Amino acid sequence: MVALHASPAERHKLSEDGILVMLNRHFPATHASLLLGRGDDCAVVDGKGPLAVSSDIFLEDVHFRRRYFMPEEVGYKALAVNISDLAACGARPKGFELCLGLPENVDATWLEAFFSGMAELAKRYNMVLAGGDLSRSPTVHIAISVWGEPAVRDGFLVRGGSMPGDVIFVVGKLGLARVGLHVLEDSGREATKDWPDACAAHLRPEPQVDAGLMLARAGFNARPPALMDISDGLIRDLPRLLGLSGGLRATGQAHGGSLGAEIVLARGQLHPEVIRHAVNLGRDPVRETLLGGEDYALLGSCAPDMLPSLNAAIPGLFSLGVVTTGGNILCNNEVLDVSSGFDHFNNGHV
Amino acid sequence: MVALHASPAERHKLSEDGILVMLNRHFPATHASLLLGRGDDCAVVDGKGPLAVSSDIFLEDVHFRRRYFMPEEVGYKALAVNISDLAACGARPKGFELCLGLPENVDATWLEAFFSGMAELAKRYNMVLAGGDLSRSPTVHIAISVWGEPAVRDGFLVRGGSMPGDVIFVVGKLGLARVGLHVLEDSGREATKDWPDACAAHLRPEPQVDAGLMLARAGFNARPPALMDISDGLIRDLPRLLGLSGGLRATGQAHGGSLGAEIVLARGQLHPEVIRHAVNLGRDPVRETLLGGEDYALLGSCAPDMLPSLNAAIPGLFSLGVVTTGGNILCNNEVLDVSSGFDHFNNGHV
Repeated sequence: MVALHASPAERHKLSEDGILVMLNRHFPATHASLLLGRGDDCAVVDGKGPLAVSSDIFLEDVHFRRRYFMPEEVGYKALAVNISDLAACGARPKGFELCLGLPENVDATWLEAFFSGMAELAKRYNMVLAGGDLSRSPTVHIAISVWGEPAVRDGFLVRGGSMPGDVIFVVGKLGLARVGLHVLEDSGREATKDWPDACAAHLRPEPQVDAGLMLARAGFNARPPALMDISDGLIRDLPRLLGLSGGLRATGQAHGGSLGAEIVLARGQLHPEVIRHAVNLGRDPVRETLLGGEDYALLGSCAPDMLPSLNAAIPGLFSLGVVTTGGNILCNNEVLDVSSGFDHFNNGHV
Repeated sequence: MVALHASPAERHKLSEDGILVMLNRHFPATHASLLLGRGDDCAVVDGKGPLAVSSDIFLEDVHFRRRYFMPEEVGYKALAVNISDLAACGARPKGFELCLGLPENVDATWLEAFFSGMAELAKRYNMVLAGGDLSRSPTVHIAISVWGEPAVRDGFLVRGGSMPGDVIFVVGKLGLARVGLHVLEDSGREATKDWPDACAAHLRPEPQVDAGLMLARAGFNARPPALMDISDGLIRDLPRLLGLSGGLRATGQAHGGSLGAEIVLARGQLHPEVIRHAVNLGRDPVRETLLGGEDYALLGSCAPDMLPSLNAAIPGLFSLGVVTTGGNILCNNEVLDVSSGFDHFNNGHV
């Protein structure tokens, strides 16, 4: 792959074949769910039942910066944010396709580490890389499509279905990734020393796959929980759960607006790094937590009698409040202005 | 979507919600094959059997230029090149996911036309847009994942399986899109006047879906044809069909190199615009045809006794030569140097 006597400048130059060799080392080409693997015009997935599918973009200088992301973390996070969508449907990850655009200034060392971070996650969830496409591009850009199967027969979870009186719950951390983004933007990699949890939440978010599967199972013999992942902050995503607003991929959902919510975020529930960061800036830690962005926590609602068993089965699940009627969202007894929050399209978060 | 008294500068400014409204107008949200449509974390595809899946990137200034592509053509071609991969497997297109990055200088008029070009093709093949992702990006970039079902039970076609004595055939035009690229790069949109077929081949390639389905059916009660689409030129793709080289997505295919080919390209078979362009530049029209690039024709091989029925059933199919042994490819009795041709990764074709 690399000529023995290549000049230093040539040594790490990438060729298409070199990239394929690297890729084959990191990602097994076969998988029980693939009838035909990489190398043909299409891969063939063994569709034995319904499949959950989702796609996400992960772009340099829009979603990440090479300045403070290790290449392993870029590879990891690009796949993690896609897996989070599967988790939010209670799906078991099965496979993915990778579209990868690379600029000239990416070398073999960077790419090797990028693949290893992605492969770590693919291996953990036994996902096959079924194919994809490779191109030159001005900056690193990654588009991934993932698919998964239901944990229980036909048992995917959706956003809709909340009812007044339902408990609203979260699995994961709120607001922490946003603090990570801010401190990494301000101080670069150095920020990981003072803000370890916040930086980790931004650099290596944990998709809540096991929790999603548990929630899907809980819904098999009862009214299924409503579920989604929080990518744009609780303040934008809670209205989506309740059908009060659309969102990036929303189409024709109920906009009647008859549901509402009352949630409580006590200071004791907030992460110490979120509090410290808010205090440093003279801001309200609760509001900072609500604004969030890229939490990749799960947000859901369920009948109150389901909560004890969920609490027992799912580490990191906590209840946040209740579903009400009337279209308003109250947090700590104040009406939330839900028009703020995180907008990937118009703000581009870095 | 657009404020009534918006200033001229604001009038065509895009919002996320505005884009979603536009998208919903162009692409129906429901489809017989979708159990859950757009608007949730995942879509749910009704997997009643194996699915062929493929992904392709389509990037501004790498794969297309806004200078001479109409927005309709960008939308059309981004999806067409993906559908071509399904055609090459003999698959019937079913659905797709769209990852779309848009720079600030794209306005609603451009995007409307872009969607209409893409929707034209989606409608023709009854494909549902199941979801995707939207982001800001420095240039227009598009990554699409498509899936399709087999024309006949489990009847996807693959690249491998050619045998000595098999007939090599092509469905579609060779070398024409490459001429289109050159003249459009030289003269911009003006080139469409003197080079109508070449420009059309580059701007609006025709995926050979019907031919792929016919070929899959032909293989149901006989040894199936080997099949792929020609995206990098015959000179690079024929060795891939024969297992002599890997390619962008190749992994662990037979590299034994025992097959070969003898093909004939008579001047009478070449497109007049390819000949005229080659003559203008003092080049060999046959070699220019072989170099190709983005032909999106189908390339295949089959047992000789299958050819007459294929010829009768598939318009535009012509035979090119025969599969031999020994690892060499002869064209018009001369050994081809197959190390040249079109390399998306290292050359970036525009």
